[in-house]
Amino acid sequence: MSTNCFLVISGPNLNLLGCRETSIYGGSSLEDIHQALQESATAMDLSVDCFQFNLEGDIVDCLQGAPEKYSGVIINAGALAHDSYTLRSAIGSLLLPCIEVFISNMDTREEFRHHSVIAPVCLGVIGGFGKQSYVLALEALANLSNQ
Amino acid sequence: MSTNCFLVISGPNLNLLGCRETSIYGGSSLEDIHQALQESATAMDLSVDCFQFNLEGDIVDCLQGAPEKYSGVIINAGALAHDSYTLRSAIGSLLLPCIEVFISNMDTREEFRHHSVIAPVCLGVIGGFGKQSYVLALEALANLSNQ
Amino acid sequence: MSTNCFLVISGPNLNLLGCRETSIYGGSSLEDIHQALQESATAMDLSVDCFQFNLEGDIVDCLQGAPEKYSGVIINAGALAHDSYTLRSAIGSLLLPCIEVFISNMDTREEFRHHSVIAPVCLGVIGGFGKQSYVLALEALANLSNQ
Amino acid sequence: MSTNCFLVISGPNLNLLGCRETSIYGGSSLEDIHQALQESATAMDLSVDCFQFNLEGDIVDCLQGAPEKYSGVIINAGALAHDSYTLRSAIGSLLLPCIEVFISNMDTREEFRHHSVIAPVCLGVIGGFGKQSYVLALEALANLSNQ
Amino acid sequence: MSTNCFLVISGPNLNLLGCRETSIYGGSSLEDIHQALQESATAMDLSVDCFQFNLEGDIVDCLQGAPEKYSGVIINAGALAHDSYTLRSAIGSLLLPCIEVFISNMDTREEFRHHSVIAPVCLGVIGGFGKQSYVLALEALANLSNQ
Amino acid sequence: MSTNCFLVISGPNLNLLGCRETSIYGGSSLEDIHQALQESATAMDLSVDCFQFNLEGDIVDCLQGAPEKYSGVIINAGALAHDSYTLRSAIGSLLLPCIEVFISNMDTREEFRHHSVIAPVCLGVIGGFGKQSYVLALEALANLSNQ
Amino acid sequence: MSTNCFLVISGPNLNLLGCRETSIYGGSSLEDIHQALQESATAMDLSVDCFQFNLEGDIVDCLQGAPEKYSGVIINAGALAHDSYTLRSAIGSLLLPCIEVFISNMDTREEFRHHSVIAPVCLGVIGGFGKQSYVLALEALANLSNQ
Amino acid sequence: MSTNCFLVISGPNLNLLGCRETSIYGGSSLEDIHQALQESATAMDLSVDCFQFNLEGDIVDCLQGAPEKYSGVIINAGALAHDSYTLRSAIGSLLLPCIEVFISNMDTREEFRHHSVIAPVCLGVIGGFGKQSYVLALEALANLSNQ
Amino acid sequence: MSTNCFLVISGPNLNLLGCRETSIYGGSSLEDIHQALQESATAMDLSVDCFQFNLEGDIVDCLQGAPEKYSGVIINAGALAHDSYTLRSAIGSLLLPCIEVFISNMDTREEFRHHSVIAPVCLGVIGGFGKQSYVLALEALANLSNQ
Amino acid sequence: MSTNCFLVISGPNLNLLGCRETSIYGGSSLEDIHQALQESATAMDLSVDCFQFNLEGDIVDCLQGAPEKYSGVIINAGALAHDSYTLRSAIGSLLLPCIEVFISNMDTREEFRHHSVIAPVCLGVIGGFGKQSYVLALEALANLSNQ
Amino acid sequence: MSTNCFLVISGPNLNLLGCRETSIYGGSSLEDIHQALQESATAMDLSVDCFQFNLEGDIVDCLQGAPEKYSGVIINAGALAHDSYTLRSAIGSLLLPCIEVFISNMDTREEFRHHSVIAPVCLGVIGGFGKQSYVLALEALANLSNQ
Amino acid sequence: MSTNCFLVISGPNLNLLGCRETSIYGGSSLEDIHQALQESATAMDLSVDCFQFNLEGDIVDCLQGAPEKYSGVIINAGALAHDSYTLRSAIGSLLLPCIEVFISNMDTREEFRHHSVIAPVCLGVIGGFGKQSYVLALEALANLSNQ
Repeated sequence: MSTNCFLVISGPNLNLLGCRETSIYGGSSLEDIHQALQESATAMDLSVDCFQFNLEGDIVDCLQGAPEKYSGVIINAGALAHDSYTLRSAIGSLLLPCIEVFISNMDTREEFRHHSVIAPVCLGVIGGFGKQSYVLALEALANLSNQ
Repeated sequence: MSTNCFLVISGPNLNLLGCRETSIYGGSSLEDIHQALQESATAMDLSVDCFQFNLEGDIVDCLQGAPEKYSGVIINAGALAHDSYTLRSAIGSLLLPCIEVFISNMDTREEFRHHSVIAPVCLGVIGGFGKQSYVLALEALANLSNQ
Repeated sequence: MSTNCFLVISGPNLNLLGCRETSIYGGSSLEDIHQALQESATAMDLSVDCFQFNLEGDIVDCLQGAPEKYSGVIINAGALAHDSYTLRSAIGSLLLPCIEVFISNMDTREEFRHHSVIAPVCLGVIGGFGKQSYVLALEALANLSNQ
Repeated sequence: MSTNCFLVISGPNLNLLGCRETSIYGGSSLEDIHQALQESATAMDLSVDCFQFNLEGDIVDCLQGAPEKYSGVIINAGALAHDSYTLRSAIGSLLLPCIEVFISNMDTREEFRHHSVIAPVCLGVIGGFGKQSYVLALEALANLSNQ
Repeated sequence: MSTNCFLVISGPNLNLLGCRETSIYGGSSLEDIHQALQESATAMDLSVDCFQFNLEGDIVDCLQGAPEKYSGVIINAGALAHDSYTLRSAIGSLLLPCIEVFISNMDTREEFRHHSVIAPVCLGVIGGFGKQSYVLALEALANLSNQ
Repeated sequence: MSTNCFLVISGPNLNLLGCRETSIYGGSSLEDIHQALQESATAMDLSVDCFQFNLEGDIVDCLQGAPEKYSGVIINAGALAHDSYTLRSAIGSLLLPCIEVFISNMDTREEFRHHSVIAPVCLGVIGGFGKQSYVLALEALANLSNQ
Repeated sequence: MSTNCFLVISGPNLNLLGCRETSIYGGSSLEDIHQALQESATAMDLSVDCFQFNLEGDIVDCLQGAPEKYSGVIINAGALAHDSYTLRSAIGSLLLPCIEVFISNMDTREEFRHHSVIAPVCLGVIGGFGKQSYVLALEALANLSNQ
Repeated sequence: MSTNCFLVISGPNLNLLGCRETSIYGGSSLEDIHQALQESATAMDLSVDCFQFNLEGDIVDCLQGAPEKYSGVIINAGALAHDSYTLRSAIGSLLLPCIEVFISNMDTREEFRHHSVIAPVCLGVIGGFGKQSYVLALEALANLSNQ
Repeated sequence: MSTNCFLVISGPNLNLLGCRETSIYGGSSLEDIHQALQESATAMDLSVDCFQFNLEGDIVDCLQGAPEKYSGVIINAGALAHDSYTLRSAIGSLLLPCIEVFISNMDTREEFRHHSVIAPVCLGVIGGFGKQSYVLALEALANLSNQ
Repeated sequence: MSTNCFLVISGPNLNLLGCRETSIYGGSSLEDIHQALQESATAMDLSVDCFQFNLEGDIVDCLQGAPEKYSGVIINAGALAHDSYTLRSAIGSLLLPCIEVFISNMDTREEFRHHSVIAPVCLGVIGGFGKQSYVLALEALANLSNQ
Repeated sequence: MSTNCFLVISGPNLNLLGCRETSIYGGSSLEDIHQALQESATAMDLSVDCFQFNLEGDIVDCLQGAPEKYSGVIINAGALAHDSYTLRSAIGSLLLPCIEVFISNMDTREEFRHHSVIAPVCLGVIGGFGKQSYVLALEALANLSNQ
Repeated sequence: MSTNCFLVISGPNLNLLGCRETSIYGGSSLEDIHQALQESATAMDLSVDCFQFNLEGDIVDCLQGAPEKYSGVIINAGALAHDSYTLRSAIGSLLLPCIEVFISNMDTREEFRHHSVIAPVCLGVIGGFGKQSYVLALEALANLSNQ
């Protein structure tokens, strides 16, 4: 296991970032986010692997295998953050630090988005900063590894 | 993109229509419904593509690709209608009109079926008419295209 | 009793359709709706009688007498849909199929509009299609009579 | 259809049993459970087929096909027990007795684990006995077949 | 004002008693109830005036005028019992004892029927005895007048 | 079994009637009530056996034996009416009609008194008439036996 | 339309003001209130038309016609304020400023009176000042017209 | 103590009136409001002392001393109206009439603003009329003093 | 203390098993259950003592003395399972493993039966298998003792 | 009646104090508490009678007889404090001051322990001080008698 | 740090004790309470410092400095007890035992007073005994110090 | 106004960081945090002003003056985050971006800490990273200023 590599997971519908509902999510595409993460990782002498899944079960599979290869996880679970106890279980049994990120500030949106069922099993949460939410999470993970 | 073609999606367990619980859902099979839609489409000089999925993620994938080929969507999400915020996000970011249909009247059944989390992102809802729920929805979509 | 005649009831404030709050309810007046129903009925070789009432008790009176003359009922109860258990009782004891219609999609509006107390005693519900909601309901009733 | 064969389904994350969170779930791996079931089945002159799935849709597919091959179902739905109405629908339309099992006692854990949405469509529930929960369920099913 | 005369009010849809939903409400018509009350009143040397109204406002008008002529009121408000704060206000400001009656036992029916908003402003409640509910209420009122 | 004998049960603390809190419960003692019931029974050519218990289990024992001797039950469960599911079970499995009575109108008192958990398994309820609540219940039972 | 004339509506049971429950509502009759409004209107060189209705539907009719004759509305809806979504719809579609008034302070009374369903569609609310609540509302409307 | 002098208190953040969020609160500054009150007071031959505090404790101190100098209080508690039981206690023990005012109509804004914890201990409430809310409250107090 | 003896407690009304409500609870009497337990115990070389109590306090007494004689407890608390915090305390302070059993599946019955207040202090729960629920619980206890 | 004697009642399971769950309740047995009370009573020239009951009905009986012999009551109702409306009724009709005591601080424990249904009918409450809770309550009662 | 000195804090509006609302709080002034505490402290060879604050922040400051000088804290937080999580945090991080006291029994008053957010971080609670509540708390603290 | 200077506010009790409850909040003192912010600011060529307040009103005053001097705000409101609508109003009317930070992950702690009433008026939220939460927020603000 390399201590320098982090896993970044984006959940259902996040592959549409930058194409639709840009007034809420901004103009950055998921590719822009992945590129920003790669650049930031390089600058910090780390590496990141970035994935997007529309199936809850695929995220679970990916998380189950994560400890073999990664030192930490960044996850934007999309709408699954609000209702997936399965995802919560997968993160809860993970032997790695996990940070939850959001593109927009969930508390300014519909009621059901105010609550994340995965937050209680994450190390921390960063939300509301668009593309930068991911980058800040990477810094937080890197900082943890350095301690 | 053809303006004449509509997408019809049926969610988990709806492939069992006509086989089980016929006292609630009636004796029409999903094939009967698809055939009725095809006949109705032909009569209105339209076309329909009909799919059934047991996986939430497959419905999301199908919806994400819909704008390239279809002018509207009819969805009977089955039990996902009551709890899938992921499906809600997929429909909410869709650039097409979407109509929610139900075979039976949800308000006469168990409490959890009285609420649809996807209804707020649909254009309208039609429920309680068995096979005809789908056909009426097709007419509604066709009517929209003619306006 | 003629099997060809259906009763259409619109509740309080619906006489103002097309005059006020057109961004929500569209530009069709109640007269436009009634005319569309008449045309649609004629095309299907049926007849419809259309009424609008501002008093709950008048709707109850009208419903109580309906079985003598009509084969089915279409009702847009307006705001009474959300709180009138008296109307629910009247429909619940009706010996005719009743369909609830709405001009707009209730689930996209204020919280109190998300719940209809009369839906559990109706055969089905159609909402969100403006004037066409009524016409689709008429087709649904006609289809029932033909079975 | 053999009346002697039963289906055993374990849901998301249960493949990790025995590896992680052993203070809650004990040290038995899913393989240990499957072996105990096989031994118990052999002793009772029955057979069992044991599966684990991380995807809700795969469980639905498996359940839909079950009546062709099995006389009963044992399911530990993992976190899906608490929120999957889709799974509930699949079990509800199943033409076989289904028993819900849990490794640990759900009522001593987080609030969201106190409620199972699939319990109302199961024949019974057995929870809190670790590996033995499954074995007791198999006995219960066998006993039903003998009646 | 005669101390011997009592007012009996039945609310919306109760004119249909004996015609519809007889499995719930029994076979007695409102006329049967009125006749039983008249006979019972005669036997007790009292008189009763019995009315049925479908309009909430008509009940309010009737109640407002009651103190001039009657010594007590028996009311079966029908579905208005569950939601009419206007009726509650009318009874609450009444200067006469008022008894609420029900044909059937409300607590064995739908949830919304378990609560009466007018009960807190009535002297007492009698329910579940069909036609006899009214007769028992008349005895109770007569008994009060004799004290 | 004599069809002429009815069982009357009063629950915890009701032996204090007439001694304490007379502004709520009136000045009648439980002995007054029993005497009124005996007189009323005699007048109707019936008999009644009246008991008061402070222990829930004693009421359950008494109810379990009732079908052997009585044709109906009148119960004022006192505060047990609001929280005893054990009493509800005992009444629910009783093979006799049971009427719930209250001395005062529960809906005008503390919130917890507005709900009776035994009402759904009783034939009907009579409350608010003091001593007369019991007498009216006896008439109702007698009337049932005469039908 | 005269810009100087305002409509004043009082709802069900308010015709009893000054006769009953004077400890809550004070000794002013509705006639006293109407006279105070007329005097105040005259002093401000305005005119008012004052009505009282016991029927919800009559208030709706009156409100629907208001824009043709009046520049503003003062409404004390009585108990309808707490439950009438029909009244809310009528006011919500009104093209005039509407002020809700109460005789007494609703927040010091029963729980159900703490919430007004019409307040969200009114310009403002004035309550707790008895007869003067109406007069202050007239001043507020007059002030609006002068701006 | 002069019977002609009234205390006017504005709570936290109200010193920003007219500078920010003018679409909600209008363009009047707190100085404008104080000036309007002074003019209105002069016209009615009264006097007013106007204060604004950002600290809850300062308002409590001010209210505790009020009976020595003032005949009544007008308070716009800002956001403290929705959560300060301390303020409620201070007003509740005040030996002076107190009127609660709001600039905007609270019922058209966020949910938490629909409820005032100080309203139950105030004489009345006036809200939705901008600067005029204060002036109307002063008239109401003056009117009380004249009675 | 013998490690081979287990205590079996059945709560209020369970002495009626097999006599009443057999559509829910089946035709087995409590004696049948006790006999099945004895046979099963003998087969496993264990012993059981079986009791039924209608009084909550008697169950508490019995549980308090259990550690002196028994190695484990099986309890079907009847309706006490849903509301008795006293029973919960007695089990919670018990120094023995306790298993909760139910005859029927509680989740398919009335709402109040879906929740057991004693489950959180039991080792596990088994329900829905009629007589066999008890037998399976005995096996589970025996298995624990063998570990 | 001696004014110097007080009644001390401890409810279900409290006879186990000092034996089990000592991390919550401390090491004092009920005998230790009774002895401390006797010593404290002697020091204050008072007397106390101390009882413990596992049956709710026995507590009710004891309380009903208390006014004949005691000047005040100290009660630790155990788990009955949280659900027994019967006990509440017994205390509510008691003509003596009653103080509720707890060994531990209920607000730091399970949710259901945060609420006491008997507190509203007690003079005051003392909790969290172990054995001393009882002694402080005795002082409080003695102090009342001296006033 | 002297082990003999205790801190007594009274929150907002408690400086008015004995002046206003004496029917609820009794006639003792805060000065009376402080004097009684001083006398009681002297008798026990302890000392107390008594403060009253109207500002939440001042109480926080005072509590933060307490460990340097005092061995325990008695706090009557007034209305802050019901809503101040800031006070809860201050007490929660305090390295001293803290006892919450109330003058009156909170459970007999308004709903919002039934819950204390600071109770879970206090050692115990004493309420309902007027001035004596404070004195009993002092005894409890002294007793703790002696252990 | 310098675009390079940011305001950092820490609320009540946060001056105790590093002294108490270090298992939750870690060992960093507020001074450590301020120093880390200064170093980070220097590295980014920015400046920060850091304050801590125990009084809500002082935070409001500080925020009201912020736009004159700062380009953005970082706030850790401590327990005020969960209940201060006054703070919410102050931030809501602020003309600067504001980021909410927490030391620990609120979702893993007591229920009342799961909800922040100020989050809906902040740009974003960062929590769970101890001292680094503040530093990440500073980077986020700096990044905004650079866009």
